Amino acid sequence: MFSVGYKTQIFFARIQKNLVISGIKLFQMLKYKEIYDLVEEKIKQIEYHSGPPELYDPVKYVLSLGGKRLRPCLAIMANNLFNDKMDDIVYPAIGIEIFHNFTLLHDDIMDKAPLRRNSSTVHIKWNENVAILSGDAMLIMAYDLITKTNQKSQFEIFNIFTKTAREVCEGQQFDMNFENRQDVTLDQYIEMIRLKTASLIAASLAIGAVAGDAAKAEIELLYNFGMNIGIAFQLQDDYLDVYADYSKFGKSVGGDILSNKNTYLLVSALQSGSKKLVDELRYWLEIEKYEPTDKIKAVTKIYDKLNAGNRTIQLAMDYFTKGIEYLRQVNVEEERKVLLRSIISDTMKREK
Amino acid sequence: MFSVGYKTQIFFARIQKNLVISGIKLFQMLKYKEIYDLVEEKIKQIEYHSGPPELYDPVKYVLSLGGKRLRPCLAIMANNLFNDKMDDIVYPAIGIEIFHNFTLLHDDIMDKAPLRRNSSTVHIKWNENVAILSGDAMLIMAYDLITKTNQKSQFEIFNIFTKTAREVCEGQQFDMNFENRQDVTLDQYIEMIRLKTASLIAASLAIGAVAGDAAKAEIELLYNFGMNIGIAFQLQDDYLDVYADYSKFGKSVGGDILSNKNTYLLVSALQSGSKKLVDELRYWLEIEKYEPTDKIKAVTKIYDKLNAGNRTIQLAMDYFTKGIEYLRQVNVEEERKVLLRSIISDTMKREK
Repeated sequence: MFSVGYKTQIFFARIQKNLVISGIKLFQMLKYKEIYDLVEEKIKQIEYHSGPPELYDPVKYVLSLGGKRLRPCLAIMANNLFNDKMDDIVYPAIGIEIFHNFTLLHDDIMDKAPLRRNSSTVHIKWNENVAILSGDAMLIMAYDLITKTNQKSQFEIFNIFTKTAREVCEGQQFDMNFENRQDVTLDQYIEMIRLKTASLIAASLAIGAVAGDAAKAEIELLYNFGMNIGIAFQLQDDYLDVYADYSKFGKSVGGDILSNKNTYLLVSALQSGSKKLVDELRYWLEIEKYEPTDKIKAVTKIYDKLNAGNRTIQLAMDYFTKGIEYLRQVNVEEERKVLLRSIISDTMKREK
Repeated sequence: MFSVGYKTQIFFARIQKNLVISGIKLFQMLKYKEIYDLVEEKIKQIEYHSGPPELYDPVKYVLSLGGKRLRPCLAIMANNLFNDKMDDIVYPAIGIEIFHNFTLLHDDIMDKAPLRRNSSTVHIKWNENVAILSGDAMLIMAYDLITKTNQKSQFEIFNIFTKTAREVCEGQQFDMNFENRQDVTLDQYIEMIRLKTASLIAASLAIGAVAGDAAKAEIELLYNFGMNIGIAFQLQDDYLDVYADYSKFGKSVGGDILSNKNTYLLVSALQSGSKKLVDELRYWLEIEKYEPTDKIKAVTKIYDKLNAGNRTIQLAMDYFTKGIEYLRQVNVEEERKVLLRSIISDTMKREK
């Protein structure tokens, strides 16, 4: 045997560690790809009833536009914490994704949005009536799929889903109510995103746990995990709309500013700014003719002065940390949690 | 004892028979009132979540506008064929009524209808976004309620309901597709009303039978009974729109003619009329400026010439008779069927 010096030992240890980390990372990436591919495959295999094509073509179209498929993947990963078999979660997971796309479809009508995932929205490509009715059909399809699981889980999944579906509608209604209102409090805003966005993330994880035959306490922990990271994701989205690096974020920066969308940055600026800054902000909220870049620059400057961006990302991190703590408490071997924790962290790492 | 002559005996026998008939009729009316009142009471007692009032006020409004509550009453009567206890059917029955009102709410947006049951439609009283979203909330409420039954029935009721909800959407899509089309065949028209209208009548009866713990064969018979009488009711509605006595029908006569709505009369006239009559009919379908009474008179005259009214009511009676035959085959004591048969016959007896 030959011996090496201390520094060389450290050097090799580091390489080895990096290789191990990369190995784990690679394994996780492959595992996640497997889950993602399963979701995509099952979405492609959905059997549509031989009804009028005008009803189902928009559904196929919406589901073909892709997206991160985060919710069904979360559901499957939550199932896999407790159970390697995916048979009982795969259809509920697809049901959740269809429900999510149903909410986007109907929200886009309400927001008069021309684009979704860089493609025409259904009410533009077809018309509003088609968009309303095919959305209704998607909600029914979602219900059909979420109950395609083992008999024991069916009813609990149905109940979580129904409660969540109601909350998502309530969140959307609050969001509409808050439009053009400048007196929304931070608590009201957080409650709105809890209902509109976070509750479906929470439900995805809880439904996964139910299908995986987890105990009640574990289901609840995963629900709370999801609720907190769901709020964190939305706060981070609010932040990234203003401060993202366009090339990495993939969305144009400042869209929320141009549409006067309520975000944590706007609500907190209106709540905590000096009279002078709030007046300036209101000017930009109310002005009808402007150069888009001027408005984005001016509002961003106000946010900068109020430190609104940092406060938003700090709050997001607080929710994220709280969420991760719930995951930590879930009573399964740590190695089973690695993939889920890694995907959640990667999602949260999208930075400026 | 004293004896009376033959004629006097006949006379008293007739009075007695009439009293018995009236007695049965009165008993049925009271029984139906009990069912109807239960439905109304449960609708009033619906517990709304303490979410945004803008979401739930339209739901309360729509449900307060009344209506015949035919579907929930049918579900309860079907349950009562097999089971006197109504606990397992009352919430699914209310769920069916909410689903029915959800379809009316979304259909009214699509049809741009200003009135429903002589009151403003939701998209007029509030706005279109509120109407879309509160409709969505109603569909979710309906799902929540249809599963509030015994554990044994839950899943079967869920499956019948989901299949039916999908069919109702398909029927509405076909109805929209047929607008302004003059080449719809009679078969296509019947298939459209089967999906859009009759399937929910059929489902109401089948769901009642499931909740009442009926055997599979009886559930199927009631489903087929409902499908046939549902088609009969719609054909009769088509007929009454043209030929009803306004004071009895309660709707204005000729509404379908003025809106160029596809009805069995219109479809059959277009299919079977001479070139001269079809051309005349097309003239009235395409003309943009006209006196409403002129158009109603002219189109009615064309229908008269083609005997379209009589053919429609004859076909309605055929479906009705076929439906009643299915009810006859249901394996329960005849006296249990009296109320259901009587209500169905009364509904069919609405005449010109």
